[in-house]
Parts: sequence; C-alpha cells; structure tokens
Amino acid sequence: MIKFSKAVSSLRTSEIRDLMSLATRPDIISFAGGMPGNELFPVEEINRIYNSLPLDIKQTAFQYGPTPGYPPLLEALKEHLRKKGLPVDKNFLMITTGSLQAINILGKVFVDPGDLVVTENPCFIGAISALKSYQAELKGIDLNQDGIDVEKLKNFLQKNKSIPPKFIYLTLNFHNPAGTLYTQERKKELVPILQENDLLLIEDDAYGDLYFDEEAEKRVVPMKALYENELTICYTGSFSKILGPGFRLGWMLVPEEIYKKAELVKQSVDACSPNFTQVLACEFVQSGQIYDYISRMRKIYKRRKDSMADAIRKYFPEEITWNEPRGGFYIWLKLPPQIDIISVLKKTIEQGAVFVVGKTFDPAGLDNSHFRLSYSHTAEDKIERGIQIIGDVLKEELKKK
Amino acid sequence: MIKFSKAVSSLRTSEIRDLMSLATRPDIISFAGGMPGNELFPVEEINRIYNSLPLDIKQTAFQYGPTPGYPPLLEALKEHLRKKGLPVDKNFLMITTGSLQAINILGKVFVDPGDLVVTENPCFIGAISALKSYQAELKGIDLNQDGIDVEKLKNFLQKNKSIPPKFIYLTLNFHNPAGTLYTQERKKELVPILQENDLLLIEDDAYGDLYFDEEAEKRVVPMKALYENELTICYTGSFSKILGPGFRLGWMLVPEEIYKKAELVKQSVDACSPNFTQVLACEFVQSGQIYDYISRMRKIYKRRKDSMADAIRKYFPEEITWNEPRGGFYIWLKLPPQIDIISVLKKTIEQGAVFVVGKTFDPAGLDNSHFRLSYSHTAEDKIERGIQIIGDVLKEELKKK
Repeated sequence: MIKFSKAVSSLRTSEIRDLMSLATRPDIISFAGGMPGNELFPVEEINRIYNSLPLDIKQTAFQYGPTPGYPPLLEALKEHLRKKGLPVDKNFLMITTGSLQAINILGKVFVDPGDLVVTENPCFIGAISALKSYQAELKGIDLNQDGIDVEKLKNFLQKNKSIPPKFIYLTLNFHNPAGTLYTQERKKELVPILQENDLLLIEDDAYGDLYFDEEAEKRVVPMKALYENELTICYTGSFSKILGPGFRLGWMLVPEEIYKKAELVKQSVDACSPNFTQVLACEFVQSGQIYDYISRMRKIYKRRKDSMADAIRKYFPEEITWNEPRGGFYIWLKLPPQIDIISVLKKTIEQGAVFVVGKTFDPAGLDNSHFRLSYSHTAEDKIERGIQIIGDVLKEELKKK
Repeated sequence: MIKFSKAVSSLRTSEIRDLMSLATRPDIISFAGGMPGNELFPVEEINRIYNSLPLDIKQTAFQYGPTPGYPPLLEALKEHLRKKGLPVDKNFLMITTGSLQAINILGKVFVDPGDLVVTENPCFIGAISALKSYQAELKGIDLNQDGIDVEKLKNFLQKNKSIPPKFIYLTLNFHNPAGTLYTQERKKELVPILQENDLLLIEDDAYGDLYFDEEAEKRVVPMKALYENELTICYTGSFSKILGPGFRLGWMLVPEEIYKKAELVKQSVDACSPNFTQVLACEFVQSGQIYDYISRMRKIYKRRKDSMADAIRKYFPEEITWNEPRGGFYIWLKLPPQIDIISVLKKTIEQGAVFVVGKTFDPAGLDNSHFRLSYSHTAEDKIERGIQIIGDVLKEELKKK
C-alpha cells in the first residue's frame, strides 16, 4: 500500500498545464500562458554567443557548478542589479532554477505546516503552489490600483497579532495577473506596517524591466533598493522574461543569514542550476546584449498591449472594467456579477480563443469575478481577432441575464 | 527577527562544496568530486547538434516546456530505458532537474517529519541531504561485497515492525561511494523481504551504463526490470554521467499513482526542467550518438580505474583493504582502526592530493573508517602521482602507531 506524505496530500491539481496545452494548439488564439512569444527569443544572439565560446568554457558549461551559481554570471548579474539600485554588496546573490525555485526555497526556509503567509489577492499561481506545498496558510489581501490595500493589510495584521505571518509575498512591478504597478506612495506606506509587525518581505520582481513609459520606468525601483535599511527583504528575479524560460534561471538577493539556509536547501534540491544555460546567460548580460534585447521587447510588448487595449475598447461590453497596464504581460478584467466566466471560457475555446479564469490566482481558489488576458505571446493581428471572439461571447452572456 | 522553519533548522552544512572547491584548485590532484573529467564531455557532438537544430526547435528550447519533460525527449528516453528491460509502458516517465531532484521529489511525496527511511551505509550524500531536508530518520544498513546485508536488513525490519519505513533507497549498480555491483542473487533475496514488509523501493541507477566487463554488463539489469510485478519500484536515472551534469537532467520512472503526486510537486518546485538542455539531450539520444559516447567512456573510465588500482597495489600499505570496482567512478577503501583519516587528508592536501572521508557518506555522519577515491575526472599520469602521495602519508601514519 502506498502512503503519501501529508504535504502532498494537501496539493491539488493545478490548472496551468491544461491551459498551457490549449495554448499550444495551433488553431487557437491564446491569451493564457504567461510567457514570451516563441518568435521573440534572442536566438541569433545566443547562436553567436554559443559559437564564440572557447573550448574550456564550453567544457565548464557541461560540468557541475558551485551551488550558488556560475561565478562569472553572479558577477555580471550583480552589475545588472546594481543599476536598479539594489544593495548587491550588503547581500548575497544565488542563481536558482527559475525564480519559482527561489520562492520555493524561501518557502522551505521559513514555512512550517500551518504557518500563515500574507500575499496579494490575486497572486502568482506559482507562488501559491510553492507556498502551499509547505502547507502554508495563505491570506490574500486585495490589490487596488496603487498596490496592496494597506488598510485591509493593517486590519488583518491587527486582528492576528497572536499568530504573526512568517512573511509577506508581493509583486510590485506589473503584477501577475493584475498588471498593477505600485506607486511610490504605496511602497512608502508599507514600510511602517511591515516594521511594526516585524514582517519579512519577499519581493518578486520578474517583470520590472518591462515598463512601457518613462513614468513607469521611474516607478519600478524595488523596495529592496529603497528600504534596505528599514526592512528585511528577500528579492527574487528571473531570466524567463528577458532571455527565455527554457534556460530555467532566476535568482534571489537576500541577507547573509537567510542565504546560508537557502544554500543548504538548494544543495538538497538540485545541487546547482544548469551551468550550460548559465554560461550563455553570463555572456548575454556581460556583453550588454541583454539591454538591447530588453529595449526591443519593451516596444513589442507595448504594441501588443496597445492592440489588446484598443480591441477591448472596441469589442468588450462596457460592463467589463479594467486598468491599462504600464508594463509586463497582463490585463486583468473585472466581470459584472451575473457573468459565469467558466461558461464564457468554454464558449470562447469552442470559437478559438483562450484565457485564464480569476480563481486560478486566488490563494483561496474561489473568487472567479475576474479573468486574465496575456498579450505577451500573441501577434497583433491575432490579438484583435481573439478579443473580438471573447467580446462577442461576453456580450451574448450579458444579454441572456 | 528572522525565524526559520523546523526543516531548515535541522540541515547541517555539507562538506561537498568545500571539497569541490579544493577539487578545482589547479595545483592539486583531485580524487574528490563525483563527476566526469571536463575533457571527456561530448562537446563536438553537442556543437553539431546545436548548429543543426531548425529555428522552430531552437525557439522551443528557449520556452517553458510541459512539467513532465520535453515530449520528444521522453519518447527517446523511453527507447533507451526499454533497452534495459524497463517497463516503460506500464509506468510514467518524468524528466527532473538532475536525478537528485527526482530523489528530492520522491522524498517530498512520501516523507513526513520523523518518518523512517532505510538506506545503504554508506549512501550517496545527495540522497542523504535530500531525505534529511524532509526530516526523515535515516537508518543505514551495511553494504557488503554482494550488496546490502540482507540479514541485517531483515533483523532491523523485524525489530521495527511497529514503525515501518516509508521506503528503502538503494543504488545497485556501481554504488556511490562503495563501488558495489549487486549480484543477481542478492537482488533476488531482497524481493521477499521487501514484499513481506510492504516496502517501496527507490532504485537509483545513475551509473548502470558504465560497466567495465561482460559479466558486469549482465549484472546491471535494474530490479525495476526484473521484479516489476513483485514490487513497487521508483526508478531514477541521470544524464550527468552519460552527457554532462551541467545539463541538469535526470528522470524518474514510476507507477501512475506516484507520478501524479510527483508531477504536482515538480510544478511547485521549478515548473519544468530546462528545455534548452532537454532539446540537445533529445537529439543526442535519438541519433544514437549517446551509445558511441558511452562506449568510449566505458573504456576511458576502465583505464583510469586500472591505473588507480595498479597504483594502490604499488603504493598503499596492505593494511588498507578494498574491492576493485567493475564499473562506475569510485574505489572505497577500509582503513585499519588506528588511522585518523582526517589527519591523513590534511597532510595529503598539503602535499597535493585530495579525496573524500567516509563519514560524508554515513547517514549518521559518524563512521570515518573508510575513504572514497574517484578516478573519473583525473588523467592516468596524475592518478599514479596522487595515489603515491596518499600512499606515502598512509604509510607514515601507520608507522607512528
């Protein structure tokens, strides 16, 4: 008889994979997955890098590397992070197998079964599943246009003085799925709240490089850069949106004490992240090609966002409300109460368009009052067609009620 | 105040990393790390594969892949495993980020804090740290020349009827560190013991392809191939020794019920293993180049083993006892009781040679009566010099007593 652990007994099947498989059906217009379009990857640049590597570096790429990462990549990445104002010299940097692994390792470092963790609601599904895998009790606090609702956060922490959360997990720049970019004011308001509650912050910055305008560029400064002296912050990031998810490379920048534990966990998880892709990423960063690439991507994603926003204004009923994102991959839309989004999704899939329903991103797995559209991996002409399909179904559903 | 989880509080610093850093000092002859020599990697083959990939496959390599693995790699790997007699159609195959991740995920699937897990003593250090990270209580049962000591195993299970272990973890082919190749008889003896105790087997076969003679080739048949109908077996393997550890690719072949849980865990850990290296590994297997490569490596590792064995016979005092391995990477040597291996190691490092002390591989972290020499990443001329250094120190130490 097979007897599973308590930890896996509490895991439920994620909807990501089924949606991803829909997203790759060639006949369907997909706004589902949170990934770059295949046609956008810097294949030419990596070809040139690969073919110019000297033999000894290539051999290194085939070998195990140190647990914290390939040393030249760590150095190059430090320079990249220094440009964001991050305190790279006072903290320790570790390469992880995607930034999901960074969140997962930090989950292991802090969470005992039953521990409380505060997140935004909605929240990145990868973080939900990583933290739940350690049997964390997740409390999602509503996001509004400027960031997490600080009044609700304060009230919650006040009411739960006796069971302080292990940490708070926030995505301040172009939130997945909500698209939110925190205001400087909102970040400032958070400082005394976290201080008073001795609350550690895990700051996920997977999208901060992908801003669409100058005002947004000014606002993407991480809290880890602004409030290093005031707060304890674990900062995570990723190459998935600025190079390629298939490299499986992310990172964490954390205080020494936390780093030491994280490194022990990393050793027991996969020993090191792929040296093969680290060697390539290193040259991509070191040579500065990453900056040309990101700057091209910003323009392309902005054009895709514009196409989607225009199409939504043209084809969606006005009962559907949303905010235009200033960066990142996602538009998050609120439904009027009478619409059943699951039934909408089934119909749009029949007609050739797919997206992700809101409850996927609810830490409690219940709230289906929103849905997420991703414009990152769909060409502009297809975006208009897909939005028209979804808009028509939404209008029909509204008429019925 | 930072408050860590109970799980990480129980993790201790591993000695692997320090040893690895010694192993890369250019002036030292290293018998420490368990990796292929850098000069042995199939760099040419992978160059040709990389440069012949069509654009759409390269783009796929940059993208997220399905959680269980890149589908064409899964198909190619199934054919590779079918050749070993493994029941690939009755089980489910998953690509993992190295086979350490496969063991780690299975740890998460089965182990609750305090659960008992049986291993061999000595045991692969990666498995020790992965299982301990789930707060497993490890019981190491002595290995002898033919495999795990079945009498001791039977006695232990008999005495612990009230607290049955969650599983038993075994490496049957060219054990790390002991070099042991199980006899067919020993595998057969295990069957009724595991059946009577309803004991799940995790079979780690990272080295099975690297046999040195025909008799060994006949003996590397996995228990998963021999006893699929009699036992519940989770089989794990790795590309680290037959392509390159820097690819971070391993696998597990497990029954459906276990696979479903393992896939949920994998989703929460790193979403998928690197597609970039999966695409390359796929072509390496599919084209059959892997077989030419493995067959070359067998000859090279055998020559290195022969050089080391000859040098040991020439330079080591006869009080040091050991068995000649018939495959794999390691020679495991027993010391007479009066020798302090830590003090030997310090002296050999001063004089320019390094190895790994036995207690590293003891699940209880105590027994230092052995040491491990790895011949996999050291050229033959250096092997003789390094063994002479160690032999001279051992003789000196023996004389003192």
